[in-house]
Amino acid sequence: MRLCAKLYTKGTIKMANFIVETSARHVHLTTATIETLFGAGHTLTNKKDLSQPGQFACEEKVKVVGPKSELMLSVLGPARTADQIEVSYTDARTLGLKAVPVRESGDTANTPGVKLVGPCGEVELSEGVIIAKRHIHMTPEDAKVFGVENGQIVNVKVASDGRTTVFGDTVVRVSPSYALAMHIDTDECNAAAAFGVVYGEIV
Amino acid sequence: MRLCAKLYTKGTIKMANFIVETSARHVHLTTATIETLFGAGHTLTNKKDLSQPGQFACEEKVKVVGPKSELMLSVLGPARTADQIEVSYTDARTLGLKAVPVRESGDTANTPGVKLVGPCGEVELSEGVIIAKRHIHMTPEDAKVFGVENGQIVNVKVASDGRTTVFGDTVVRVSPSYALAMHIDTDECNAAAAFGVVYGEIV
Repeated sequence: MRLCAKLYTKGTIKMANFIVETSARHVHLTTATIETLFGAGHTLTNKKDLSQPGQFACEEKVKVVGPKSELMLSVLGPARTADQIEVSYTDARTLGLKAVPVRESGDTANTPGVKLVGPCGEVELSEGVIIAKRHIHMTPEDAKVFGVENGQIVNVKVASDGRTTVFGDTVVRVSPSYALAMHIDTDECNAAAAFGVVYGEIV
Repeated sequence: MRLCAKLYTKGTIKMANFIVETSARHVHLTTATIETLFGAGHTLTNKKDLSQPGQFACEEKVKVVGPKSELMLSVLGPARTADQIEVSYTDARTLGLKAVPVRESGDTANTPGVKLVGPCGEVELSEGVIIAKRHIHMTPEDAKVFGVENGQIVNVKVASDGRTTVFGDTVVRVSPSYALAMHIDTDECNAAAAFGVVYGEIV
């Protein structure tokens, strides 16, 4: 099912909201890295489709080895043009990685590197670890409904029982290939008690 | 140094702000529990005074044993009339504790229990584990400056580079024995990138 902007009426004001999904730590890998970690010719195995069209959680997992400890991370497919490891501040501290910046996906210049270990080999990355900047994926049609444009920074209210939170610094990402959904990380989910099916509203 | 409400002017509007401190996981213990864990007649050793007058971090640590794993937690003094274990959602998941509620300090009825282990003994608590509800300590004089009263729920903006956040559901706690400071947990700190010396503002 493709999600799209849902309009509802609050008093006399038309409102729209969207689902808020929590992205747990994960990695995106290049074809070269996939082959080094999982063997020549290996391709990723789709375990479960994600909300963004064409994106999927994989059966494959990789060990991420930090200076302090290591964590097993799920691989998200399909293969990308650059390796990217997305963690929370909590995960970064667990791994012993310092100065991991909050960045948009794809913006990995001058970020920390880390070692990835798979069943068939390992890769020492010189960069690629980020903490994902919270964002809303939407189609151009959704953007019109919300009155926002690609790259715009908005505030999103997520109501919960006891931890209602407004997430500032949320970037809007618009593409015809997206489906409407906000993505936050596990720290942000915990801070807002945004468990289960939760909706956000631009305020 | 006793912190107090600091007034400043933003345009023509008088604003006030306050320091936002992060409380990492910790325990408060009764005299009976202290003696069971650390030996008969033992009293807590002040390692460092905290912002709230009379409160201090102790040299003593206790092992908190959950169904899934265990964590060493700092003890905060002085002794209290009830044992209380304060964790984040991240910690609760690490320990394997389910259904830990967000509560104000002291409100431990019908919360999960846990086992505490010290160098001289252990205690099986039938309740006492909470996730602290975010709150602002203030004196009656501070409350007048902010125009709020004890128990009021307010929204607090914490500005940071890339993760500015408004924490709703923040309870105001007023007492002459308090010093002005907001307390959030480690998940909330990470969600707002509220590292170092950070200030909040009621919005």
